[in-house]
Amino acid sequence: MKALTLPRLGQVVLEEVADPEILDPDDVVLRVTATAICGSDLHAYNGRIAGVPPGMPIGHEYMGIIEEAGPEVSRFCPGERVTGSFFTVCGQCWACRRGFYTQCLKSQMFGFGPRFGSLAGTQAEWVRIPHADYTLIRVPDEVSDEAGVLVGDILSTAYFAVDRGNIRPGDTVAVVGLGPVGLLSVELAYLFGAAQVIGLDMVPDRLNEAQRLGATTIAVGDDSAKQIRAMTEGRGADAVIEAVGSEQGLDLATKIARGFATISAAGVYTETALSVPMGRAFAKDLTIRAGTANVPAVAPAVIELLRCGRIRPERLFTKKLPLSAGPLGYQWFAERKALKILLRPGQ
Amino acid sequence: MKALTLPRLGQVVLEEVADPEILDPDDVVLRVTATAICGSDLHAYNGRIAGVPPGMPIGHEYMGIIEEAGPEVSRFCPGERVTGSFFTVCGQCWACRRGFYTQCLKSQMFGFGPRFGSLAGTQAEWVRIPHADYTLIRVPDEVSDEAGVLVGDILSTAYFAVDRGNIRPGDTVAVVGLGPVGLLSVELAYLFGAAQVIGLDMVPDRLNEAQRLGATTIAVGDDSAKQIRAMTEGRGADAVIEAVGSEQGLDLATKIARGFATISAAGVYTETALSVPMGRAFAKDLTIRAGTANVPAVAPAVIELLRCGRIRPERLFTKKLPLSAGPLGYQWFAERKALKILLRPGQ
Amino acid sequence: MKALTLPRLGQVVLEEVADPEILDPDDVVLRVTATAICGSDLHAYNGRIAGVPPGMPIGHEYMGIIEEAGPEVSRFCPGERVTGSFFTVCGQCWACRRGFYTQCLKSQMFGFGPRFGSLAGTQAEWVRIPHADYTLIRVPDEVSDEAGVLVGDILSTAYFAVDRGNIRPGDTVAVVGLGPVGLLSVELAYLFGAAQVIGLDMVPDRLNEAQRLGATTIAVGDDSAKQIRAMTEGRGADAVIEAVGSEQGLDLATKIARGFATISAAGVYTETALSVPMGRAFAKDLTIRAGTANVPAVAPAVIELLRCGRIRPERLFTKKLPLSAGPLGYQWFAERKALKILLRPGQ
Amino acid sequence: MKALTLPRLGQVVLEEVADPEILDPDDVVLRVTATAICGSDLHAYNGRIAGVPPGMPIGHEYMGIIEEAGPEVSRFCPGERVTGSFFTVCGQCWACRRGFYTQCLKSQMFGFGPRFGSLAGTQAEWVRIPHADYTLIRVPDEVSDEAGVLVGDILSTAYFAVDRGNIRPGDTVAVVGLGPVGLLSVELAYLFGAAQVIGLDMVPDRLNEAQRLGATTIAVGDDSAKQIRAMTEGRGADAVIEAVGSEQGLDLATKIARGFATISAAGVYTETALSVPMGRAFAKDLTIRAGTANVPAVAPAVIELLRCGRIRPERLFTKKLPLSAGPLGYQWFAERKALKILLRPGQ
Repeated sequence: MKALTLPRLGQVVLEEVADPEILDPDDVVLRVTATAICGSDLHAYNGRIAGVPPGMPIGHEYMGIIEEAGPEVSRFCPGERVTGSFFTVCGQCWACRRGFYTQCLKSQMFGFGPRFGSLAGTQAEWVRIPHADYTLIRVPDEVSDEAGVLVGDILSTAYFAVDRGNIRPGDTVAVVGLGPVGLLSVELAYLFGAAQVIGLDMVPDRLNEAQRLGATTIAVGDDSAKQIRAMTEGRGADAVIEAVGSEQGLDLATKIARGFATISAAGVYTETALSVPMGRAFAKDLTIRAGTANVPAVAPAVIELLRCGRIRPERLFTKKLPLSAGPLGYQWFAERKALKILLRPGQ
Repeated sequence: MKALTLPRLGQVVLEEVADPEILDPDDVVLRVTATAICGSDLHAYNGRIAGVPPGMPIGHEYMGIIEEAGPEVSRFCPGERVTGSFFTVCGQCWACRRGFYTQCLKSQMFGFGPRFGSLAGTQAEWVRIPHADYTLIRVPDEVSDEAGVLVGDILSTAYFAVDRGNIRPGDTVAVVGLGPVGLLSVELAYLFGAAQVIGLDMVPDRLNEAQRLGATTIAVGDDSAKQIRAMTEGRGADAVIEAVGSEQGLDLATKIARGFATISAAGVYTETALSVPMGRAFAKDLTIRAGTANVPAVAPAVIELLRCGRIRPERLFTKKLPLSAGPLGYQWFAERKALKILLRPGQ
Repeated sequence: MKALTLPRLGQVVLEEVADPEILDPDDVVLRVTATAICGSDLHAYNGRIAGVPPGMPIGHEYMGIIEEAGPEVSRFCPGERVTGSFFTVCGQCWACRRGFYTQCLKSQMFGFGPRFGSLAGTQAEWVRIPHADYTLIRVPDEVSDEAGVLVGDILSTAYFAVDRGNIRPGDTVAVVGLGPVGLLSVELAYLFGAAQVIGLDMVPDRLNEAQRLGATTIAVGDDSAKQIRAMTEGRGADAVIEAVGSEQGLDLATKIARGFATISAAGVYTETALSVPMGRAFAKDLTIRAGTANVPAVAPAVIELLRCGRIRPERLFTKKLPLSAGPLGYQWFAERKALKILLRPGQ
Repeated sequence: MKALTLPRLGQVVLEEVADPEILDPDDVVLRVTATAICGSDLHAYNGRIAGVPPGMPIGHEYMGIIEEAGPEVSRFCPGERVTGSFFTVCGQCWACRRGFYTQCLKSQMFGFGPRFGSLAGTQAEWVRIPHADYTLIRVPDEVSDEAGVLVGDILSTAYFAVDRGNIRPGDTVAVVGLGPVGLLSVELAYLFGAAQVIGLDMVPDRLNEAQRLGATTIAVGDDSAKQIRAMTEGRGADAVIEAVGSEQGLDLATKIARGFATISAAGVYTETALSVPMGRAFAKDLTIRAGTANVPAVAPAVIELLRCGRIRPERLFTKKLPLSAGPLGYQWFAERKALKILLRPGQ
C-alpha cells in the first residue's frame, strides 16, 4: 500500500510499504478514509520527538471503514465506520478498569516508533488497530469524516482540557494560545457554559479566528492580566486553558487566573522540567492540571455533540489534500500556511 | 402609592396603600420599574397558598432603582439599578454563611402574608427590601428590565434545577413540563452542554415553543419512555429536569431516566407527600433532588450570562402591561392566555 | 454436591444437587469456603421475593477458591482466593463501560430464580460464576474469609450508600436503622470522616451495638428530630443513611436532615411506590438517592480497607455454622436470634 | 502589655508595648490565653520573610477570651472563648462572598509587618482582631486551648491540603515531609478514609512520630518511588500531600504519584518560581494544587472534629512555656529541639 514515511528529519515522502495484517485476535485492519496532520506530527518531522524509523508509516489521526476484524473483536464488524484513539488501550489493566486509559500498561501510540510501542501510523491506505474493542469508536452517519477524524486526538484533547478546567456556567474562561487545540477550546468553553471566552495569542490571524467563534481577544502583551481584570470586575479569569504547552504560556496563565482558579493545560509539555511560578500559585490557591487526553473516556460525549450538531470543528481544515500530496501538506503545515490539513487516501 | 392586592380569592385589584419606609438600618426602599406575574402568584390567587391578607401588596418578582438606603447598607447606593431574590436573606446565620440561603433563619418571602414573614409584595410602585446587601443583586446596563426581573425567581429557579441535574457536556437532557420554568430549563440545559434536549408536555403550544429553542419534543403518552430510549441507543435520559411539580411528573421522570441518572425538580411540590416509585429509583440507582432555588447563590452567574447575551429569557414575556392593568393580567394568566406577563409601574 | 434449597416458603433444606460446570468460556467454578445469610435471602424465605424454584441452590454471598476457569478467563487462575459481586456483570455493555455495573444489560443475580436470571445460588459446596473476570474480586491473604464474604454484598452496600451521602469530614451523619447494613454504615461513616455518627433504631440490642462502634444513639420516637437538632446547634444531620428501606425510615430521614442534606438509602425498596414527603424535601432542598450497590465499582476500595485493617466488619457474625446447619441458621435469622450468620461448606 | 518582638534578625525579646484598642466598630480586643510558634514565624526570625518592624508584636496563632467588642460585632460577646484565622477577612468582598477567604481584598496578616497589612501579632497579652465576626471562630468547652490554638493556622492548613487531595476512602495517601503540618496531614489523611498513609522524610525522629500515628514510613532515597509502587501493586500513591514546600518535595511528589493523582501542597512556596517536572505531570495526567489555607472556610469542620475527639493534634506540643520564655522558645524551635511550642501569656 501507499503510506507517508519520514526517511529523514524535515522530509516526508509517499512510498510503498507492506499491507497491514491481523496479528492478534483482537486486531482490526482499517481502510483509512481520512487522516490529518497534527502538531505532534511536526514534532517528529522537526526532531523534537526523536526515533521515528524510516519506512514506517507516520500519523495518528484517522477515520475509516473496518476491512477485517480478528476473531475476538466483539463490538465491531467489517463495513462499520469508525474513528479511534491516537493511542491503543487494552481495556483490562487496572488503569483501563478505572477509566484512566492514558495510563494503560499496554498502550502503544500510532506512528511514533519504538519509544511509543512501534506501531505503524495512520497516514496510509490501511492501518492495523490493536485492541480494537477499546481503541475504536463508532461514528454515526450524521458525523462527517472531517469531524470524525478529529475525535481521536485534538478534539478530545480540547474537550478533556476544558472539562478539567472546572468551568461553571457563567464563568469567564481564558484560552492561552489559539492554535487548533486552542480554537477548539474556545468553542468548547462556550459549550461548557462560559459567559465569556477570552482568547490570547500573538498572531493576528489566530485572534481573528477566535473572534469568529465568539471570543473576545487580547494580543498578548505586558498588560494582558490588567485587561482581563478589567473584563471581570477586577477578579481575573475563573478558568484558564493553557493551549501552548510552554513555560511562557503557563506563566501567563497563572497571572490572568483569579484566586482559586483552575489552569488546565491542553498543550503538550515535551520539556522535562519548566520554571513554574509556584509562589504565585500558592498565593492564589491555584490548581494546575496537565495531561494527555483521555480519549476513550471522553470520545462518546464528543461523538454525541457532533451527531447533534452542537460543535462544528471541521471548519479547522483550511486545506484538504489527497494522501499522495502529504509531503506538500507537511511543508505547508510546517510553514504555518494552513491551520489544519486533511489527507484523503484513495483520492 | 398604587399596588396590586388580593381582596378575595380570584380577584386582584389596584388600590392605594401606604408608601413603604426604611424600618431597619439595612433596608432599602426600591422604586419598582418592572415586576412580573409568577405561577406561584396564581397559587395565592386560586387559594392553593392560603393566608394572603387583603390590602397587602402581592407579587415577588421585581426590578427597580434604589430610592433610599438605610445607614447600614454598604453595597448599594440610591440610584443603582437592581433586581433581587424573591425571599430575603440575612447573610449572617449558619445557613447563609454556608451559602444555603434558602434555609436562612430570618428569611421572609415577598407578597405571601403571615406564613411567609408578612412582607409586602413587589407588584407596587415601591417596595421595602430587608437585608438589602444580601437580598439584592446589581444589574449591569447590558441587561434589560425584562431580563433582570426574571433573575430573582424563575430564571434562577431553572438555573438551580439544571445545575443540580449533574449534566455532563454531551448528555441527553429531558425536561418534563414546558411552562415558563420548563422552557427556561430547555435553554439552560443547552447552555450546560447538553447534546440534545428533549421536551415533554401535553400542550401543543408549549411543545412548539420548546422546538423553537432547539428541543426535540414528545407529546406525553404511554410510550414516552420508549421514544426516549430510541433516541439514546436504549439508555434513557442522562438527566431529567422535572418542571411540573406533580406526582405524575415525577413518575414520568423516573421512567425516562437512565440508570444512575439525576432527576432535578424545578417544580414546586406544594403537597405534603407524594407517591414516589422508590422501587424503580432503587433498581435504577437514581438521585432525586428537590428544592427552592438558591437565588442569592446562583444570581451572579445568571446575571453574567445575561450580560454576555448567552441566554435570552425575556422572550418569555408574551404580554407587557402597565401595573394598573394588573387585574387583567392575572385573569389572562389564570386562563393561560399568556406564557408570562410583565407589569410596569409608572406607565 | 450439597446445597441449601427452598422447597417451600419458610423452609430451607440441605439437599444433594448436580455439581456446577463451566458452561461459557468466561465462567469459573468456585469451591465455596464461606457463604452467609442475608436480609434479602429472608425476603425469598418469607415470600416477599417470589419465584425461587425448589431444588435450586439459594444464597448470594460467597468466598471461595477457584476450582476451574474457562478458557477466556484472563484475570484469575485455579487456586486463587476470591469473593465476588452478588450479581454478575458482563463488562462490555454501555453500562459496564461507564462503571454503572448494577445496570449491566446481561446481569444475573445468584440464588433468586427466573426473575433474576435463573442463576444457582452460593449456599452450596460449589458455584458457577459467569463473566468471572468482571464478577470476581481477588482477596489478599490479610483478609479473612469472614471479612471477604461481606464484600460481595452488604459491606459494599454500606460503602456505596455512605459514599453517596456526600459526607464531608467534620459532618454529623445520622444512620436510620441499625441492622447489619446500618451498623456497617456507622463504621463507614466514621471512616469517611464524620465527626459524630448518630444511630437511630427501636431495638435496644441494636442501639447498644451501635454505641460499641462509637455512635451516639437515639431510640426512635416523636422527638428524634428535636434531639438531633440539639446535637447540631439547631441544624439537623448533614447526611442521613436510610438503612431500613421503608416509608417510615425515609420519612424520618427527611425530618432529621438539615437543609441541603443528602439522604442516601442503603435499604432495599421492594415496594413499587412509597409515600414520600416531597413538600418537605422541596422546602429543605434535599437530595434523595436510592440504589442497588455498585459492587464491582466499590469492591477494590473495600478490599483495600480490609487489607489495611481500617474496618472490622467480621464482628457482625454472631453465629458461625457448617453449611449442613443452614436450615437452623435460617430459622434463627428469621427469628432475629443472630445479627448475621456465616455458613461454612465442608465443615 | 508584654509582647514578643523582633528587634533584629535572629533575636526575639519580650518587651513592653502599648495595649491594643478597638479602632474600628467591628474590632474585638482579645485576651490571649495561648499562642504558638509556627514555621512561618521562623521565616521572619531568619529573614526569609523580610520587613517585620522592631517593636511590633509578632506571632499569628492564638486562642483567647474576648475582652471587648466593638459596637458592630454581632456574633461574639465579651467573655467568649475563641480562636481565629491567622489572616483577617472582611466577609463582604467578592472573594469572601464566594468563600475564597484567602483572597479577601482587605485581608491583613497578624505579626508580619507592612507587607502584610501592618497588623500587630498575637504573641502578646492582648491582640486587636479586625473584622471579628468573620475572622474569629467560637471554641466549645470540649476543645482545649492547646487544640484550639492550632485551628487558626497549621491544623486548618493540613485539613485544607488533605481536602484538596481528592482522597477517596480506600486510597493510599503519601505525605512528603513530616514536620508539624506533615504529621497533621498523616492524621487527617486517615480521617479522610485513607486505607494506608505513607510518610516520607529524612529525619528519623519524624519518621518515628509518623509511625506512632499509624503511617508506614519511607526514609527518602533513590528508590522511594519503587518502594511505593511495591506497596500499591505497581500503581503509585493515589494522592500526595506535599508538606515541605520545596522543589525537591514537589519533584518527589510527582514521582510517587500514580497516573491521574492529585498532589496537594501544604507547604509554603516562598520562592517566586520553582523547576517543576511538567513533562512528567503531562505524561501522568497529574493535578497540582498549591495554596494558603482557607481557614475561615474549613475551621467549623475542624472545630467539630476536635469537639468530638476525632483528632488529637495537641500532642504536637513537645514544649509549653510561659510567654516570657518566648525568646528561649524561638531559639529551641530554630534549633529543631521541639516539634511545636506553646506559649502562655499570664503565666
